[in-house]
Amino acid sequence: MKKILITGFEPFGNDKINPALEAVRLIAGRKLNGGEISICQVPVVRYKSIAVVKQAIEEQKPYAVITVGQASGRSAITPERIAINVDDFRIPDNEGIQVIDEPVIEGGPDAYFTTLPIKAIVNAIQSKGIPAMLSNTAGTFVCNHLFYGIQHYLKDTNIRHGFVHIPLLPEQSVDGSQPTMKLEQIAEGLAIAAQAIIDNNEDIQEGAGTIC
Amino acid sequence: MKKILITGFEPFGNDKINPALEAVRLIAGRKLNGGEISICQVPVVRYKSIAVVKQAIEEQKPYAVITVGQASGRSAITPERIAINVDDFRIPDNEGIQVIDEPVIEGGPDAYFTTLPIKAIVNAIQSKGIPAMLSNTAGTFVCNHLFYGIQHYLKDTNIRHGFVHIPLLPEQSVDGSQPTMKLEQIAEGLAIAAQAIIDNNEDIQEGAGTIC
Amino acid sequence: MKKILITGFEPFGNDKINPALEAVRLIAGRKLNGGEISICQVPVVRYKSIAVVKQAIEEQKPYAVITVGQASGRSAITPERIAINVDDFRIPDNEGIQVIDEPVIEGGPDAYFTTLPIKAIVNAIQSKGIPAMLSNTAGTFVCNHLFYGIQHYLKDTNIRHGFVHIPLLPEQSVDGSQPTMKLEQIAEGLAIAAQAIIDNNEDIQEGAGTIC
Amino acid sequence: MKKILITGFEPFGNDKINPALEAVRLIAGRKLNGGEISICQVPVVRYKSIAVVKQAIEEQKPYAVITVGQASGRSAITPERIAINVDDFRIPDNEGIQVIDEPVIEGGPDAYFTTLPIKAIVNAIQSKGIPAMLSNTAGTFVCNHLFYGIQHYLKDTNIRHGFVHIPLLPEQSVDGSQPTMKLEQIAEGLAIAAQAIIDNNEDIQEGAGTIC
Repeated sequence: MKKILITGFEPFGNDKINPALEAVRLIAGRKLNGGEISICQVPVVRYKSIAVVKQAIEEQKPYAVITVGQASGRSAITPERIAINVDDFRIPDNEGIQVIDEPVIEGGPDAYFTTLPIKAIVNAIQSKGIPAMLSNTAGTFVCNHLFYGIQHYLKDTNIRHGFVHIPLLPEQSVDGSQPTMKLEQIAEGLAIAAQAIIDNNEDIQEGAGTIC
Repeated sequence: MKKILITGFEPFGNDKINPALEAVRLIAGRKLNGGEISICQVPVVRYKSIAVVKQAIEEQKPYAVITVGQASGRSAITPERIAINVDDFRIPDNEGIQVIDEPVIEGGPDAYFTTLPIKAIVNAIQSKGIPAMLSNTAGTFVCNHLFYGIQHYLKDTNIRHGFVHIPLLPEQSVDGSQPTMKLEQIAEGLAIAAQAIIDNNEDIQEGAGTIC
Repeated sequence: MKKILITGFEPFGNDKINPALEAVRLIAGRKLNGGEISICQVPVVRYKSIAVVKQAIEEQKPYAVITVGQASGRSAITPERIAINVDDFRIPDNEGIQVIDEPVIEGGPDAYFTTLPIKAIVNAIQSKGIPAMLSNTAGTFVCNHLFYGIQHYLKDTNIRHGFVHIPLLPEQSVDGSQPTMKLEQIAEGLAIAAQAIIDNNEDIQEGAGTIC
Repeated sequence: MKKILITGFEPFGNDKINPALEAVRLIAGRKLNGGEISICQVPVVRYKSIAVVKQAIEEQKPYAVITVGQASGRSAITPERIAINVDDFRIPDNEGIQVIDEPVIEGGPDAYFTTLPIKAIVNAIQSKGIPAMLSNTAGTFVCNHLFYGIQHYLKDTNIRHGFVHIPLLPEQSVDGSQPTMKLEQIAEGLAIAAQAIIDNNEDIQEGAGTIC
């Protein structure tokens, strides 16, 4: 039975909740076809976030890992294509750390592609009527930081990993200024993603490019 | 017991479903505090849409009326402030009618403000964690056409009426290009709006202006 | 020789300049084919704005009037279709006045359509390679206030009038967060609009509708 | 005297002109403080684009290189932070080639950071009142392809290189649906970028991060 570890960030900035954490809690222990979902709560803190997920990986020995964070302004569940080796924090993290253009891993390569079958994931989520879309940038805050750090940590293993951004919850944008998605739908989308990882050893061939 | 008539449009353009019709079906017969929701299905056709809602009003003798339509691109349930006396159809309606800058009602005034307590409605919906926002334009297609036609028809009565635009459903935008809202949340928002009408004989004083 | 009066607002909110005022200054006295442009500076103040433009109309006896204001977020020069009888100020005007849902003119009709040939104007501006688009809402701040007030004042005359929103200047959004237009292009667009008024006693038939 | 080579793409897709090519033509031969601008026209074709710029570099022996392309939807001049090793073409290039998820350089690293002082460039452009903004994704079409290819080619040299996306021209979006920038302003922004490269051997420390 393949364990899929899905991690969720704690709230940050001015937010009281983080849909990532709420969503993974909803699907903790969920049985998959040939697998099971386990979860882990992650602090929005430089390096500590990476350390916490590393420890969860060591303890839980998952088949694959999905790290998850919220993305204000997005209408869909968006698996990320690439993690980049830079921390350029527009706001401080939850311990007040704010850095400009420092590497995540000193001496690490400029970037790592995700090892998840992201197009199969997008496809699977969409086929259930849930908006999904590939993204080519995970930003330069703790989301990308964790994405890069775990991708680096797992690079010589066969544990696949990737980061998935999710929309705000309706209650986080009641004034209608940002697109939102219901918690149940986000959680369902993440469970579908976990199943798609089990079902696809290799990614499918499907165009999802952007002109710029 | 006050009957609130909520009408929903049929699908139009390239869409197979219309969230307006789906949502009102979900709340047909719903009991309110001091009232009840009744519904009516409306064709996306110039004048026929007005005729169908007029007939429903005559038969059902509602306390108030909410006409409802979908608005691609919006993240929230958006009560409309004003109906304008112009039909400027960017696409043909469901009977192939496409007109440019013709009045809805020949000789009618340029516009009618809604008679619904729209700020109380926005407030009530938001207080349940559902995105809502006032809108100052209902466009120039059949939505505005029906809004104006019914506002004109009811102008010398004490039946209050207004139009509410709702977002697309998730399954209408699985590629993530447009914001969406789950059907249950849309339906809940409309029921809250119906209750807010019963609860507010006059609108509340609350700023919701836009600079332009 | 037909005089076209084009008015421009003073800066408001946190802005140091207003592209409307800067643009009309650039074309003051500009000769048109069969006419000439005159201008007037308008304070961003409830009622005072209307009074100042009324006085300019009385003094200058123009053939037609274009009132102009800035619209953050728009990419194009946008002639407005309709002025509505409501002041709902999200921010205070330049004299600190902030009102909610009060009429511009007590007892006035809910709205006035512009009397300018707005589709001919959009067409003429676009034909010179300058982005232009019709708008169905002038907001609920001083722009709409002035638009409604002057439309009301001129309703029994044959002086045509309308409001045109213009984008921010590049120097107002150097961080790239909003679309902008160069001052010279805005000014040129307004001069083209003035000429289009002289050239079109009636508007052209051209679809420019929006679904919602 | 330091030669800055700025390259511009030919038109592609449905466009008749490409602002990148038009803009670089305007500043060909422009004298800088301690340098001079030279240019090169680039076909929107997989690999051929890289070959053409490589040859120009060999012939012109520039001090630094800016490759430039258009980005529909952007309001500002946007230097790119990173080039990624993937071609995922949503539309065919100008020779009909359309590939999905193939590497630009087989066996190359996943990505290269630009070697241009991009924050100094953004700063310098903004200080002249021209909108500029850092971007974290150059897409997955020929723009990113060329960016990656040249970054790879120059990796063991001291010739710095980066890609800059520019907005559409006003005449490319007369309907107002996309933000635009006047050709002269784009050209001026690119010349400022060239000067900023000469003036900054190292990039400045300035936050320009994005949350996601």
